[in-house]
Amino acid sequence: MYKFKNSDSMRKLLLGVLFFLILAFPVSAQNTKIRVLVFGAHPDDCDISSGGLAALYVAGGHAVKFVSLTNGDKGHQEMGGGELAQRRYKETQEVARRLGVEYEVLDNHDGELLPTLENRLQVIKRIREWKADVVIAPRPNDYHPDHRYTGVLVQDASFLVIVPNILSSVPALENNPVFLYTRDNFQRPNPFRPDISVDISAVFQKKLDALDAHVSQVYEWLPWIDHDTSVPQSPADRKKWLGNRWLTRSQPTPEIKQNLEKWYGKERAAKVTQAEAFEICEYGKRPTEADIRRLFPMLPAKP
Amino acid sequence: MYKFKNSDSMRKLLLGVLFFLILAFPVSAQNTKIRVLVFGAHPDDCDISSGGLAALYVAGGHAVKFVSLTNGDKGHQEMGGGELAQRRYKETQEVARRLGVEYEVLDNHDGELLPTLENRLQVIKRIREWKADVVIAPRPNDYHPDHRYTGVLVQDASFLVIVPNILSSVPALENNPVFLYTRDNFQRPNPFRPDISVDISAVFQKKLDALDAHVSQVYEWLPWIDHDTSVPQSPADRKKWLGNRWLTRSQPTPEIKQNLEKWYGKERAAKVTQAEAFEICEYGKRPTEADIRRLFPMLPAKP
Amino acid sequence: MYKFKNSDSMRKLLLGVLFFLILAFPVSAQNTKIRVLVFGAHPDDCDISSGGLAALYVAGGHAVKFVSLTNGDKGHQEMGGGELAQRRYKETQEVARRLGVEYEVLDNHDGELLPTLENRLQVIKRIREWKADVVIAPRPNDYHPDHRYTGVLVQDASFLVIVPNILSSVPALENNPVFLYTRDNFQRPNPFRPDISVDISAVFQKKLDALDAHVSQVYEWLPWIDHDTSVPQSPADRKKWLGNRWLTRSQPTPEIKQNLEKWYGKERAAKVTQAEAFEICEYGKRPTEADIRRLFPMLPAKP
Amino acid sequence: MYKFKNSDSMRKLLLGVLFFLILAFPVSAQNTKIRVLVFGAHPDDCDISSGGLAALYVAGGHAVKFVSLTNGDKGHQEMGGGELAQRRYKETQEVARRLGVEYEVLDNHDGELLPTLENRLQVIKRIREWKADVVIAPRPNDYHPDHRYTGVLVQDASFLVIVPNILSSVPALENNPVFLYTRDNFQRPNPFRPDISVDISAVFQKKLDALDAHVSQVYEWLPWIDHDTSVPQSPADRKKWLGNRWLTRSQPTPEIKQNLEKWYGKERAAKVTQAEAFEICEYGKRPTEADIRRLFPMLPAKP
Amino acid sequence: MYKFKNSDSMRKLLLGVLFFLILAFPVSAQNTKIRVLVFGAHPDDCDISSGGLAALYVAGGHAVKFVSLTNGDKGHQEMGGGELAQRRYKETQEVARRLGVEYEVLDNHDGELLPTLENRLQVIKRIREWKADVVIAPRPNDYHPDHRYTGVLVQDASFLVIVPNILSSVPALENNPVFLYTRDNFQRPNPFRPDISVDISAVFQKKLDALDAHVSQVYEWLPWIDHDTSVPQSPADRKKWLGNRWLTRSQPTPEIKQNLEKWYGKERAAKVTQAEAFEICEYGKRPTEADIRRLFPMLPAKP
Amino acid sequence: MYKFKNSDSMRKLLLGVLFFLILAFPVSAQNTKIRVLVFGAHPDDCDISSGGLAALYVAGGHAVKFVSLTNGDKGHQEMGGGELAQRRYKETQEVARRLGVEYEVLDNHDGELLPTLENRLQVIKRIREWKADVVIAPRPNDYHPDHRYTGVLVQDASFLVIVPNILSSVPALENNPVFLYTRDNFQRPNPFRPDISVDISAVFQKKLDALDAHVSQVYEWLPWIDHDTSVPQSPADRKKWLGNRWLTRSQPTPEIKQNLEKWYGKERAAKVTQAEAFEICEYGKRPTEADIRRLFPMLPAKP
Repeated sequence: MYKFKNSDSMRKLLLGVLFFLILAFPVSAQNTKIRVLVFGAHPDDCDISSGGLAALYVAGGHAVKFVSLTNGDKGHQEMGGGELAQRRYKETQEVARRLGVEYEVLDNHDGELLPTLENRLQVIKRIREWKADVVIAPRPNDYHPDHRYTGVLVQDASFLVIVPNILSSVPALENNPVFLYTRDNFQRPNPFRPDISVDISAVFQKKLDALDAHVSQVYEWLPWIDHDTSVPQSPADRKKWLGNRWLTRSQPTPEIKQNLEKWYGKERAAKVTQAEAFEICEYGKRPTEADIRRLFPMLPAKP
Repeated sequence: MYKFKNSDSMRKLLLGVLFFLILAFPVSAQNTKIRVLVFGAHPDDCDISSGGLAALYVAGGHAVKFVSLTNGDKGHQEMGGGELAQRRYKETQEVARRLGVEYEVLDNHDGELLPTLENRLQVIKRIREWKADVVIAPRPNDYHPDHRYTGVLVQDASFLVIVPNILSSVPALENNPVFLYTRDNFQRPNPFRPDISVDISAVFQKKLDALDAHVSQVYEWLPWIDHDTSVPQSPADRKKWLGNRWLTRSQPTPEIKQNLEKWYGKERAAKVTQAEAFEICEYGKRPTEADIRRLFPMLPAKP
Repeated sequence: MYKFKNSDSMRKLLLGVLFFLILAFPVSAQNTKIRVLVFGAHPDDCDISSGGLAALYVAGGHAVKFVSLTNGDKGHQEMGGGELAQRRYKETQEVARRLGVEYEVLDNHDGELLPTLENRLQVIKRIREWKADVVIAPRPNDYHPDHRYTGVLVQDASFLVIVPNILSSVPALENNPVFLYTRDNFQRPNPFRPDISVDISAVFQKKLDALDAHVSQVYEWLPWIDHDTSVPQSPADRKKWLGNRWLTRSQPTPEIKQNLEKWYGKERAAKVTQAEAFEICEYGKRPTEADIRRLFPMLPAKP
Repeated sequence: MYKFKNSDSMRKLLLGVLFFLILAFPVSAQNTKIRVLVFGAHPDDCDISSGGLAALYVAGGHAVKFVSLTNGDKGHQEMGGGELAQRRYKETQEVARRLGVEYEVLDNHDGELLPTLENRLQVIKRIREWKADVVIAPRPNDYHPDHRYTGVLVQDASFLVIVPNILSSVPALENNPVFLYTRDNFQRPNPFRPDISVDISAVFQKKLDALDAHVSQVYEWLPWIDHDTSVPQSPADRKKWLGNRWLTRSQPTPEIKQNLEKWYGKERAAKVTQAEAFEICEYGKRPTEADIRRLFPMLPAKP
Repeated sequence: MYKFKNSDSMRKLLLGVLFFLILAFPVSAQNTKIRVLVFGAHPDDCDISSGGLAALYVAGGHAVKFVSLTNGDKGHQEMGGGELAQRRYKETQEVARRLGVEYEVLDNHDGELLPTLENRLQVIKRIREWKADVVIAPRPNDYHPDHRYTGVLVQDASFLVIVPNILSSVPALENNPVFLYTRDNFQRPNPFRPDISVDISAVFQKKLDALDAHVSQVYEWLPWIDHDTSVPQSPADRKKWLGNRWLTRSQPTPEIKQNLEKWYGKERAAKVTQAEAFEICEYGKRPTEADIRRLFPMLPAKP
Repeated sequence: MYKFKNSDSMRKLLLGVLFFLILAFPVSAQNTKIRVLVFGAHPDDCDISSGGLAALYVAGGHAVKFVSLTNGDKGHQEMGGGELAQRRYKETQEVARRLGVEYEVLDNHDGELLPTLENRLQVIKRIREWKADVVIAPRPNDYHPDHRYTGVLVQDASFLVIVPNILSSVPALENNPVFLYTRDNFQRPNPFRPDISVDISAVFQKKLDALDAHVSQVYEWLPWIDHDTSVPQSPADRKKWLGNRWLTRSQPTPEIKQNLEKWYGKERAAKVTQAEAFEICEYGKRPTEADIRRLFPMLPAKP
């Protein structure tokens, strides 16, 4: 495992890694840009689930967009309403800048998302306009109702994106994208199954940069609901604090470890310190292993 | 017309008036308490429409309740959400204290009220539980959609309050209350018609006390949308400023003047400097003149 | 004015009238059957508004259908739910038998009708399937919310009945029917305007027969909400009691009197003791006077 | 496996089979007609899931009805709206003719079905009016949102069909029918479980006849979304093409094979070339093995 | 009154007029661009109500946008669904080209528009993003339910466009625009009142150009529902036919004539052959006469 | 196993048990009252699922509330509507008296519960106002749609009870309660898993007392839908009949037996004749074993 003495050396390492990545994927970057669309319920969910993956795609010259289906105007202990929504929106745009992705926030109320036809059409519209090859969303079972209904909405859109008579003002896709669920810890009715696990160790710092931009979330609201009063004051200290939290959270579980071996081979998998994992949804395109290696160019061509 | 040199003498006068009022209505206070329920869309609408009337009822020993159908969590230039809703709620409780009324705030979003069955049942419930003799609400035509739909909701409830199979958990009223619309300036499809006009000159200061408690509304939000930057800093000054605004706004229009003459006689009507006026809604009980004089004991027995 | 000594002589008179009517309209009966569809909110509204008109149409060989948009499962002081709805349904079928009309009851809850798309399609379906020439419904302003929304629903259907892409499973009408509002006493935003007034004196007893079949309404619920304890016990007595109530209620107002003169001429109008009146809705076909005389064959060809 | 040289010999064979079937089930045909109701989301889903089963029931003299909850007005690459809905409706009526079933299409928009109360009542109504012994519908997990919500709607109706106060205008059933799910390939949250598998080899041609009537689906829309340009021009050729596709699709999986053995015995199960399979839903009647053999008279009395 | 011998001379005249207009309003064009937003229910309603006014604004260098709240996917006798919606969308873009306006079409179903919160937010969004000074929409009483609910939606948005906590992702306007209703012939609950009437004689041909682009509407659907089979075949002939229809329809009524005199003076008003008229909605900014002359620079500075 | 000769000796035993219980938990009773909230769909569901547990809590001095989300106005073979709802409400208040719990009934229609935002807020409100430590509800898979949607509603509320900006008028909880599912027999998508099983043998009679109060349910409706005509006439006999039914139903399954051993130890578990079991929902607080023993003081401190 890597050991970072200070953030400076970490940064250097990261630059090296990025340089390597850019060299590593020259063909895909020039030829076929993969287009990835991540849905979350709140203006930090996409970063949490897929921030590392996004950094890898962007480094490879691919196009990534994050969409938050609510404006996050409820999840805070002090502020609320438009004031909070606007603060959150600015945080997403800072993430967009740091990660090199697009970040859109729909103006639905936090805590009130429902799987309506109106919302379904909004999801279909985003998938079509982005010409997505890969669509990522939470499973329809998770602790927050907005997460669950985000999952339902993306499922409900999954087939209809190719039906021209639905939302006829936006050209239908020719092919269903691959739909992926993001990782969670819930066991019922069945546990998350890591089908595609991605080594994000090299871009873990990039993911932290993204999370760090969600000041109102990661340093205020989330600690508050956990009764955690350990958040340091200074930006540098609190980012370190955040890093420590996420170092652990991003460690591969045994199941993810096993899946990493499938994609990276035993040797490299053993070195993975941080990973993001995804389950293939049955409702979109069912990709072959070759499809997956093509759509996830950060995976080695052969394990 | 009265001239107030300072708020102190005003207070004395008011005390005198109240004393007089308490003496004037001893019978009604002991015998049959009139029960009045005022609906507004936001946590200041009831005060604006019926604050003076409420003060007169309370002075006569009657029971008055204000209900705001939304929590006012949108109408502010800086705050929003739960933070604003809680501030507004505290303001209503201060009004309750100052006026001697009950003040309830339903937790519907400001700017999003719709005439749903759920909201209709909430209105029916309040009318029944209050055993209202008189129910007051805005007309279904007004500039703010929440005002309009408050009017629709109260209309939709008006007959059903006596149907036992509707909301069977709360005993139905035996008789339809009188339903009244509050004054507005809109002409289409037809103008507000003052059917019952009430001299509030003697309690005008009381109404001001109520409005003054809505700090977030009368000194912040309403001036802001009017681009009015003349609000003074100190509580005393700004209350004077508020008084000047409302002195004018509460002056009887020619139509109200005429209606005041019907109820008070020409002589007293001529002395009325401040009035509130109401239109009888066709959908509830259609009161005779005798009914009205009984239900509005602040009106003289004979004009 | 006619004087009926007993119901027997009344019956004889009625038979005579019917015989006359059958002779009077032989052509229309054979040639072009007028098709009339009356919407009400509850299982007695159609009879109240248009029972006499229906009797005249049926006597002339035309086709009349009543549709109640709710099942009336709330408006009773003791019963409720399916038990009440089934009793009410049986009462409508007795009316159908007595009047010679079809009577359909939709299974929507009483007191909960809303102008949804689903309900709108149900209305469109009935109008098309009946191939209605004339459609009758309450105005969208009336004391009961179900009445108002019945009016809104029929308005919302009025144009769409001729659009083939709407409810494409039921062939669209080639022409918009004439839409009529039924009489009410409400003045705001404007009063009911009698455009077509029909002399129902000759079939008044027939209308009473219909109303008399609504036992749970006219002898139980409606008196109960009026605190009227004068309803006699025996079927014969209570029907007489009902007749007295409706004799008055069906008397033409001055406005209706005036309109009767337009259609019947002064002389006959003067003899009309019972009338039903209708206002032409602006949203369907706008009939000429000739259209009206054709569609209302009970009106004389010339006044 | 059978080899058909031409459609003529196929027809003869089929006639023979039908003759055999009619002889085989004389008792059930005379005594107790089984009443079967199949729900699908679109005007070909019932045929796909249960076309063979339906043919066997009809051959045995039983009553089968197909209901499509949407009108299929979206799923086509060129047409749409009422034009498409009407074409699809005609195709269902041709299926009705070919299979000897009833086929009803509800006028809900394709791609927009939701589990509303209105739709639930529509489902309850069909089940009651058909006096269904067996009700068949998709599982609530499938790739198309309309399929999923069809499953939810039928589940939501399953108990309420016996509650007289629900939809009181249509008499409630005395007993819950058996509810069955149709076969799909989805594994999450759990895979389809074949509880009742039916040998449709003898009526496979009949099922093809039904599918062949859905020209706008099986020869136009479904190949188009699969980018399959191999559909032949002539009706005869394309039907052969369709037959080849479905020969494979209807082959029993190992799980179905195993279940066939339960019902038919090892020997006959080994000869089954085409099968349809169903999972028993836990929410309706839980049939014993004897119930199943009675309700599915095409299964042998003993395996 | 002008007499046009052929379309050529008409074109020349128009060019002259436009040249004059461009000279006439150089200041406004350079200084303060008026921003106008017209809402319609279907993809021809804006043109019908305000096509001439739009042409005048554009000629003066101002910014005009048309928004159709539905995609028009129902109103046709043969086509429907996405096929029709796409055809209609192309027609609007041709109008945009011919008139020099922006034209947006929302993907709501024709014949199914309802005043939901989702639709209200869509309207608020358009008004804010366009920074509209003037917003134009139908009255909430008109023959088509989509027209009525377009009126309701714009009314419901009228105040909320200045509330920052509503749709906080799009900056609120600082001031309420002026809201105008478009002309209709309906009398109940009160007739359309022409408050601002605009002489469109000089740009009448431009309006015709716009209408002529709506081939599927003006030459197919609208004549079909009127059973009018007189539409000529050739594009030139049918445009003449269209011109004749609209020459009459655009003639000022006596009420509009009178209002034209107010704004143009008696002399010029007498020469107006074609006019569009608007009623000021009470719910937005209440403009003074000076405001109106500033916002409608095509009106002379003094009558 | 205990043997009761007559109800008198049973009562004595029970008194003894209660006395023992009161002695056994003196600390918890004095110090920290556990607050338990049970949700059911109908006015007998809470008793069926948790009546024994409630009796044990109450005996230990803790606070228990039952909430029925519908008023039960449909589930009866003869009555319905408000008449039935009021009868059911009185039955719940009798249960409240017998068990020593609070019992609230929301006025939603039976058979029509949906997971709307309005209902979700009602659930959040109850959880917060009760300051619940433990919340109990059915799983979202069960045979009755109202049961399923009760499960969904409580899930949807589970996280939001701690978010202050949601329903800001009622103070948010500081910590998520433990959420538990009640026992059912459904296997799909996965079977109920007994995580916490409680020996209710000692209070089984108390549970019967509660069920016995639901006369309209346990002696009328439930036998009727089961075609069970064996209900005795006299109150004493029918209660015995009820006891026999529930003796069996409350017997621990093998899975529950095993779970009882975990909490009570093998020895005591072997003696348990009646039990209630609960599954821990993943969406609220995830309790440790120590948490569970603290929150369920009827469990022994050590097995």
